[in-house]
Amino acid sequence: MPTSDLSRIRAEAPLVHNITNYVVMNTTANALLALGASPVMAHALEEVEEMVGLARALVLNIGTLSPPWVEAMVRAGKEARRRGIPVVLDPVGSGATRYRTATAQRLLDEVGPAIVRGNASEIASLILAGAATKGVDSTRASDETVDAALAVASRWRCVVTVSGATDVIVGDGTVLRVRNGHPMMARVTGMGCTASALIGAFAAVNPRPLEAAAHAMAVMGIAGEMAAERAEGPGTLQLHFLDALSRMGEADVTSRLKLERA
Amino acid sequence: MPTSDLSRIRAEAPLVHNITNYVVMNTTANALLALGASPVMAHALEEVEEMVGLARALVLNIGTLSPPWVEAMVRAGKEARRRGIPVVLDPVGSGATRYRTATAQRLLDEVGPAIVRGNASEIASLILAGAATKGVDSTRASDETVDAALAVASRWRCVVTVSGATDVIVGDGTVLRVRNGHPMMARVTGMGCTASALIGAFAAVNPRPLEAAAHAMAVMGIAGEMAAERAEGPGTLQLHFLDALSRMGEADVTSRLKLERA
Amino acid sequence: MPTSDLSRIRAEAPLVHNITNYVVMNTTANALLALGASPVMAHALEEVEEMVGLARALVLNIGTLSPPWVEAMVRAGKEARRRGIPVVLDPVGSGATRYRTATAQRLLDEVGPAIVRGNASEIASLILAGAATKGVDSTRASDETVDAALAVASRWRCVVTVSGATDVIVGDGTVLRVRNGHPMMARVTGMGCTASALIGAFAAVNPRPLEAAAHAMAVMGIAGEMAAERAEGPGTLQLHFLDALSRMGEADVTSRLKLERA
Repeated sequence: MPTSDLSRIRAEAPLVHNITNYVVMNTTANALLALGASPVMAHALEEVEEMVGLARALVLNIGTLSPPWVEAMVRAGKEARRRGIPVVLDPVGSGATRYRTATAQRLLDEVGPAIVRGNASEIASLILAGAATKGVDSTRASDETVDAALAVASRWRCVVTVSGATDVIVGDGTVLRVRNGHPMMARVTGMGCTASALIGAFAAVNPRPLEAAAHAMAVMGIAGEMAAERAEGPGTLQLHFLDALSRMGEADVTSRLKLERA
Repeated sequence: MPTSDLSRIRAEAPLVHNITNYVVMNTTANALLALGASPVMAHALEEVEEMVGLARALVLNIGTLSPPWVEAMVRAGKEARRRGIPVVLDPVGSGATRYRTATAQRLLDEVGPAIVRGNASEIASLILAGAATKGVDSTRASDETVDAALAVASRWRCVVTVSGATDVIVGDGTVLRVRNGHPMMARVTGMGCTASALIGAFAAVNPRPLEAAAHAMAVMGIAGEMAAERAEGPGTLQLHFLDALSRMGEADVTSRLKLERA
Repeated sequence: MPTSDLSRIRAEAPLVHNITNYVVMNTTANALLALGASPVMAHALEEVEEMVGLARALVLNIGTLSPPWVEAMVRAGKEARRRGIPVVLDPVGSGATRYRTATAQRLLDEVGPAIVRGNASEIASLILAGAATKGVDSTRASDETVDAALAVASRWRCVVTVSGATDVIVGDGTVLRVRNGHPMMARVTGMGCTASALIGAFAAVNPRPLEAAAHAMAVMGIAGEMAAERAEGPGTLQLHFLDALSRMGEADVTSRLKLERA
């Protein structure tokens, strides 16, 4: 259940190391703190391997990537893998430029994250560009998004989370769907990045990445629903969202949870 | 009318590429989203030309400049010009250090932005340092701010927006004034940078840069007025400002608009 | 009294130059503006010495450090010292990685800040690693935190502020304690960094660094208390905190102040 993960996060305050983009550093740190986790942001080559050794999860996000940051992600990611620390990859903008697509694929190849989270076009770009000649096996699922997610999951042996009105989480041949959330969340920058950061916190306390990702997406969506009830627009939504992450109780989760196994 | 531009932005969600400063990346992205536009932040030399090719406007802001970021601005700016994509320049801090003044002038010379937005001292610094021997033609307007704006507009053939209690927008020999806004906005960091980003969104949908800049400043000021009515200080103002950008209707604009042709 | 410093800040709007981390640039700029000071963020080697020459305080914060930023801190710090401008150092994460500890010590050695602010473990890391062979003189005070602060203050001849439920400020053999604040503040990212930035503003108007640091911590804590009375969680707390900094009057300070000389 999401609530048992949430209780563990609040009790243990796991350190989540983020190498992420400039736009969301503040908001994802605040979301992790509101949830009960401990965020740290560090990107210097001089320290990323040492820092990740202190953490219980590593979140890599290419939203404002540049070569030194990508090198830091590769180094921290390899060290995390070596130590058995779960790595979450957010391939922001993959498909928009060749540099982003190539970087996301490089991180998949060289680091091997446990969980990848993106929107439908980002996830599709990973597999279309990487395996264009083979195409996507469209017989395996009912829609293109699930196909792409299954293909990425299969190729890089990871859990794949596709955010959207309905979130799709796939791994080990299983397809989960989370129908929580609110449309106003799409009007706040970095909500996807926040989802990836929260997945890091859940992966820190739950050794099953499929569950960790699904629980994180559910808690994210429920916090968005709770916030939308108090907000007058995307500005006030942001702050009520952090309040909701902090205040969310077991009853909020159990009464609102919309998590389905396909 | 500002409302027709606003309707187009909401209908078309134009992509606005920002190469901007660290302080305001989150808040300008949120302002663009609240308005209805789609922000992207990207600064790596490896991708800026490709990214700007996807965008309908480019906003360059030197608030936390350094050499690699300036190179990215020059490259993206030249590519935008080549493709006919409007460029907005925000010369943050020009006049405070020689590096800022020289960089702003380099971007004016090498990129040729369609619209420049700054406060009075930033705009004055561009022309005083760049044309010190010629001085400013003080016969053309009634005050120094308008003089400086006209001189910059003439020298670099662009529209110039000077933010202040009254915003002045000049171009093609025309002087417009926007008297919307609220004094509390000056207590929120990056409100000027937000204005520049919003000008980018308006320039994406309105091919007349003088109108685009004036409409953006009016919508900015009206959102500030609406926010100030609900805020208790500069903290809550920020969020109500985003809500106002999102909620603003035709009646809000028409009842509050204070746009004058001199 | 804190209120006389506060009045001077509001009357004089001192420019505070920050070379700080990506996570908090926006929030510390907003806190300085809400307080009444004028923030500027600038880190390029091409301009930091010129920029600090315009400022009345310099705040160095290593939260997302990397070599070029550290070089900028050293250069700006030396220039500030040469000009008699007070320097505040926030050794974020010192003790977590060797790079952070070494950088904090380098800035202490090469710049010589007037005031250092950190949490208990950051402050302890400075002296334990730097003077491990000598140890800490535990006869001088009643607890380890005060011991470490006194040792840092003595070794680098500076005022040391240790943030916590009770803030400890030491210098010239004096120990002050501030018991203002609210536990919810720990759930907002960068509150410590904000404290360091506010110390910069107080040091800009008060030539006695011990007083400046204590007054800043008191105003910080009082703003947190005022904000907590209106907040529903760490999200809304952030904005009410900025409102409180802006609205705080003499009566708020005098009725709430808990500043003690040990």
